[in-house]
Amino acid sequence: MLYGPGDVRFEERPDPAILEPTDAIIRLTATCVCGSDLWPYRGIDRSDQPMPMGHEYCGIVEEVGSAVRLVRPGQFVVGSFFASDNTCPICKGGYQSRCVDARPIGAEGAQAPYLRVPLADGTLVATREVPPDDMIPGLLATSDVLGTGWFAADAAEVKPGKTVVVVGDGAVGLLGVLSARQMGAERIIMMSRHEDRQRLARTFGATDIVTERGDEGVACIKEMTDGLGAHSVIEAVGTQESMMQAVRSTRPGGHVGYVGVSHGVALPGLELFFSGVHLHGGPAPVRRYLPHLMELVLSGAIDPGAVFDLTLPLDQVAEGYRAMDERRAIKTLLRP
Amino acid sequence: MLYGPGDVRFEERPDPAILEPTDAIIRLTATCVCGSDLWPYRGIDRSDQPMPMGHEYCGIVEEVGSAVRLVRPGQFVVGSFFASDNTCPICKGGYQSRCVDARPIGAEGAQAPYLRVPLADGTLVATREVPPDDMIPGLLATSDVLGTGWFAADAAEVKPGKTVVVVGDGAVGLLGVLSARQMGAERIIMMSRHEDRQRLARTFGATDIVTERGDEGVACIKEMTDGLGAHSVIEAVGTQESMMQAVRSTRPGGHVGYVGVSHGVALPGLELFFSGVHLHGGPAPVRRYLPHLMELVLSGAIDPGAVFDLTLPLDQVAEGYRAMDERRAIKTLLRP
Repeated sequence: MLYGPGDVRFEERPDPAILEPTDAIIRLTATCVCGSDLWPYRGIDRSDQPMPMGHEYCGIVEEVGSAVRLVRPGQFVVGSFFASDNTCPICKGGYQSRCVDARPIGAEGAQAPYLRVPLADGTLVATREVPPDDMIPGLLATSDVLGTGWFAADAAEVKPGKTVVVVGDGAVGLLGVLSARQMGAERIIMMSRHEDRQRLARTFGATDIVTERGDEGVACIKEMTDGLGAHSVIEAVGTQESMMQAVRSTRPGGHVGYVGVSHGVALPGLELFFSGVHLHGGPAPVRRYLPHLMELVLSGAIDPGAVFDLTLPLDQVAEGYRAMDERRAIKTLLRP
Repeated sequence: MLYGPGDVRFEERPDPAILEPTDAIIRLTATCVCGSDLWPYRGIDRSDQPMPMGHEYCGIVEEVGSAVRLVRPGQFVVGSFFASDNTCPICKGGYQSRCVDARPIGAEGAQAPYLRVPLADGTLVATREVPPDDMIPGLLATSDVLGTGWFAADAAEVKPGKTVVVVGDGAVGLLGVLSARQMGAERIIMMSRHEDRQRLARTFGATDIVTERGDEGVACIKEMTDGLGAHSVIEAVGTQESMMQAVRSTRPGGHVGYVGVSHGVALPGLELFFSGVHLHGGPAPVRRYLPHLMELVLSGAIDPGAVFDLTLPLDQVAEGYRAMDERRAIKTLLRP
């Protein structure tokens, strides 16, 4: 529970129960702290009352409501951070995070031993078997951080042969690198000034590192791309500076995929107009990608779990936030 | 020449001459006044000195520079409002209006009997024969107003079966309707409160008219689309209100194609983020579409020249601007 800026507390709460016939209750195998959890933790997003936290999860189905058909108790499942019916026209169009009946998992609070997942049939994807423990970090990552990095790369139209820039070296940006590599990018330029993150970016497939930011960073990208800018740019921060850095690093006709939750951003219309870029982003429709991403993890093709460089028991959740806030950890995995 | 707000003058100027070996000189068969010419005419875009005006043109090649290979004197040609080399990576990617060597035709002033066109080989498209006079308005339209409406529909990913909204009932918006029809849209909703423009929109293929604007207009669109919004929205105005009307009329995952030159627009990042729309636009890469659009006109498949509801001799250019400014005319064709 978040009581205020910097004040996360582990406390006993009532176990969730089935409220609607389409609900499922999950016993979480693992959960984690998201970069976006740091906005309220830092007091940039405010709340008047204590908030349950967390929206990334995987685990074993404990119980399902009477209308649930596609998942059953005992199955291992992963779900997105937005529950969705997966049947409405928006879901069918691939935008499940904006389902006409979308429900934020954050409101339930996934940093907990048990979680109620609404619209279970539309939201959860089960594995054939309960996976071995070493697969858990990778599978947990598909729930948001990988799904979001993947969406960013997809929104940025990463394709074989393209030059990709990644703005933001948090876990989402790093998995944007992994995603771009999977999609066949020829060159992947990570903008980062942190050595540990640069190393991980190279592991995931980054070919170049740029440490400069803002206008200087843009000038570096232009220099590296014959003055044109990149074909595809992934924005994974959400500030005015990062958005403009992304737009200005993109060549005319190129694509910006932005997934950093916007904070105080106002895009100047005339500059955007003459940039000639494509802009697409928002809350990632993780459900669209889940089956494919879970398969990639289970087959060993990718290891997105490498972004978890700190693992703590759930009752040390406060330290998990602190470590990320102070940039001692890239991403904290929590074991209930 | 524009001397100041509301002050357009017909005056004698020296004929243009070849300045670079890649230039061509065109004797204009027709030119016209663009909606974007009204921004400086109304004093919203300011200039300290008299400006030559006009950037839409078609006519007969009079003379070419020594490096010109693809067009020759005597040919009838149409060109885009940006000259482009059509060989650089940006041009090859289809964004000729943002060519690394792009030159605005507006700086030359196409509301004139003769025009110097830089980068003639990359910019001009010739017909096989000099077309008959009744084809001139349609061919002139391909130079900008149709090319821009077409790009807007393409940027909005108009496809068979889709529902399309058009914000802006000027000539570009009207030809956005025509373009959407050509691209197979199932339903085309024109937002307009002017009866003459509504009529022309229906001629071009609009299936519905919405007279409400702003939030009320958005509510109408939502009601007509099961609460979801349109798949594709064409924005052809360039104001904050029109941009927000376009974004809010689009369903999550849908596409906004915006071509109204932005004036005072600042897009709120968080709203854009949660809208889940694709945003693409800017100065239309007309050169990409010219061969196809000219063919559609010459074959009689489309008649975009219908947007010209006033034709004047060039020396009455001032009246041409006044009529458009006062909305007595949709678009003025000028005959040198």
